[in-house]
Amino acid sequence: MEVVSLIFLVATFSGAAGYHIPGNISCLSWRLAVETNNIREWDLVPQACVNYVGHYMLGHQYHKDCKAMAEAALVYANSLKLARDGKDIWVSDLDDTALSNLRYYARPENAFGSKEFNETSYNEWLAEGISPPVPEILNLYKKLVSLGFKIVFLSGKSESTRSVTVSNLKNSGYDTWLKLILKQKSEKGTTAVVYKSSKRKELEEKGYRILGNMGDQWSDLLGTNVGNRTFKVPNPMYYIS
Amino acid sequence: MEVVSLIFLVATFSGAAGYHIPGNISCLSWRLAVETNNIREWDLVPQACVNYVGHYMLGHQYHKDCKAMAEAALVYANSLKLARDGKDIWVSDLDDTALSNLRYYARPENAFGSKEFNETSYNEWLAEGISPPVPEILNLYKKLVSLGFKIVFLSGKSESTRSVTVSNLKNSGYDTWLKLILKQKSEKGTTAVVYKSSKRKELEEKGYRILGNMGDQWSDLLGTNVGNRTFKVPNPMYYIS
Repeated sequence: MEVVSLIFLVATFSGAAGYHIPGNISCLSWRLAVETNNIREWDLVPQACVNYVGHYMLGHQYHKDCKAMAEAALVYANSLKLARDGKDIWVSDLDDTALSNLRYYARPENAFGSKEFNETSYNEWLAEGISPPVPEILNLYKKLVSLGFKIVFLSGKSESTRSVTVSNLKNSGYDTWLKLILKQKSEKGTTAVVYKSSKRKELEEKGYRILGNMGDQWSDLLGTNVGNRTFKVPNPMYYIS
Repeated sequence: MEVVSLIFLVATFSGAAGYHIPGNISCLSWRLAVETNNIREWDLVPQACVNYVGHYMLGHQYHKDCKAMAEAALVYANSLKLARDGKDIWVSDLDDTALSNLRYYARPENAFGSKEFNETSYNEWLAEGISPPVPEILNLYKKLVSLGFKIVFLSGKSESTRSVTVSNLKNSGYDTWLKLILKQKSEKGTTAVVYKSSKRKELEEKGYRILGNMGDQWSDLLGTNVGNRTFKVPNPMYYIS
């Protein structure tokens, strides 16, 4: 029912016919360029790609792409011999990695990242604590946990969201983790790449081994102390530097 | 004529029907996972994706993807104010970045990277020196040169191929460069990521500023001294570490 109404919303979005953006770049190529970090610091999904991105996110391909990413991560995870001293960690981002904000971004006023970001309404959405899991990531998480990895959730969300975030995670099926690192007031204003690098550095200084690191933003995966392997979760809706 | 016969070749390749690989991953998702470096150290294109990769490489989408990459690079290049002291450099890989080996990989015995790599026949192909340019990269190259960038070609090809490589480049429309760095005998055996990092480090130590760096392999773009911006050229046919 919810999916049906979301699909209906997609059909009602205005946008140029055809899946091309200025410069005659196809939206599929635009998405690849975003996913490979060739296009950076982009602000909004191009108007001409709103329908394309909407269909991608609500359709099968997004989930197939998440599955391929999770499969690659699992092949890698299975290849490791863990020390099992509590220091084998897997770092995961939260928003649009472990938990999906697609229901928020699918709202007409957000139009899959093609409208200006509204911090107030986004924070209200987060405060509801009803983000469902990205199913392929939840499935991967469960397998990582059963293999013996300790999960560290590393998020740019504010510390003030801790209790709602914890209940959102538990209600979504994420029932165990070593650490849930949220952004302190004093860290506000630092970019994600700087903030997350610094947190990963602290983890490594405490003797943790970052064997895997996954996120939907390149700022989750670049910088320092990125870990032994990184995994890019698809997200063509927004860019965080 | 040549393209038509290549397309005919694709149609004759054996391979599983449908574009799925084991684990029910679609070939489109496999390619995205390869392009985002989620799948690494892979050996061969999966049998079930031979036709998919062949159609991708010989069809429009590969060129559209190259164009999107080139467009992103050009937007970035145009945003820079060059010092124009001869030290503003753009590093480019050669094989399947500046010059295309698709004609070689499209041969039935290579089947778009789904058959074991044959060093002998590959070297024979290189010795012919008839690799055409990747048109979108040649176009970008010309614009970079006219903007004032000095081009450094950095390749894992052997120094012994220098004269044929130079004539191949010139015949393909690449008529100027600052340096053409090829692999010395003493460097054989080092991985691309180590070799290329070391060459880029030498460049920076000499005062060159690597403003852009493009290549079809992540080993062109990772390691140290990667440059101010990197650009991944699509290539789902092989992986070089």
